[in-house]
Amino acid sequence: MHYYYGYNEFIKDSKDLTQKIDWGFDTIIGIARGGLTLSHLLGEFYNIRQVYAINTIGYENTQKLEKTKIFNLPNLENAKNVLIVDDIVDSGDTLSLVLAILIKEYPCVTFKSASLFYKPTACIKPNWYAQEANVWIDFFWTVDLLGSKSR
Amino acid sequence: MHYYYGYNEFIKDSKDLTQKIDWGFDTIIGIARGGLTLSHLLGEFYNIRQVYAINTIGYENTQKLEKTKIFNLPNLENAKNVLIVDDIVDSGDTLSLVLAILIKEYPCVTFKSASLFYKPTACIKPNWYAQEANVWIDFFWTVDLLGSKSR
Repeated sequence: MHYYYGYNEFIKDSKDLTQKIDWGFDTIIGIARGGLTLSHLLGEFYNIRQVYAINTIGYENTQKLEKTKIFNLPNLENAKNVLIVDDIVDSGDTLSLVLAILIKEYPCVTFKSASLFYKPTACIKPNWYAQEANVWIDFFWTVDLLGSKSR
Repeated sequence: MHYYYGYNEFIKDSKDLTQKIDWGFDTIIGIARGGLTLSHLLGEFYNIRQVYAINTIGYENTQKLEKTKIFNLPNLENAKNVLIVDDIVDSGDTLSLVLAILIKEYPCVTFKSASLFYKPTACIKPNWYAQEANVWIDFFWTVDLLGSKSR
């Protein structure tokens, strides 16, 4: 079963996240591609210019790859508190690996995480999330431009 | 005068861009923050995982700073054709400077650019754009999360 996640629900959930996040941070990292739109809107909301991307490949279409690859780490020399954002914490592999790599590279930076969706079966729980997920989510950024094309 | 640019118009314009862009590229760079959401949707549309951000500070609220700062250049070692995307090419200073810095760093990579809006008075024209702009645009990613808060 696929659940269509539209723009209006995204705004509602993003507002919910901003009400839940009780922490001051100076930098936002969006896990690309899924976390990019959320990182953009949160950057605007908190008026933070330090909005970076980090790249991961964990899925090839809907097939999970054996190992998640992380690349293009941002430079966090001037960061103290970094919020990592993603669309969904599914298995948790991606967030867990991103955290491990960033903490190793920047041991004095504090990292916390937020996502729109969280699956209770994930190996790691984000500090803040809007909804629990139990089905495959078709996010609007994945499907709305395709029009009649299907995934 | 402020013009509100909503999500539905963004999807229409993004589709328009995908119809105009007659070029194959392997990498997308979104100029943060403004270009991030567009870079996300184009990355999904073209199924490109190499969606990066580059950071610039050119405006402080609506006050233009004297000099645009560029930071957090992505690693383009494996890129050949890179599409740079932004929300608006206004004065053109940002796009022009981003191009200059990237070309200097990666002289063998081909860079082209696309934006949602372009002001005819800009010093540089993107290769592709959806609309001409003559007023200040309130993009949905800037205002929709704020709710009743004004800019």
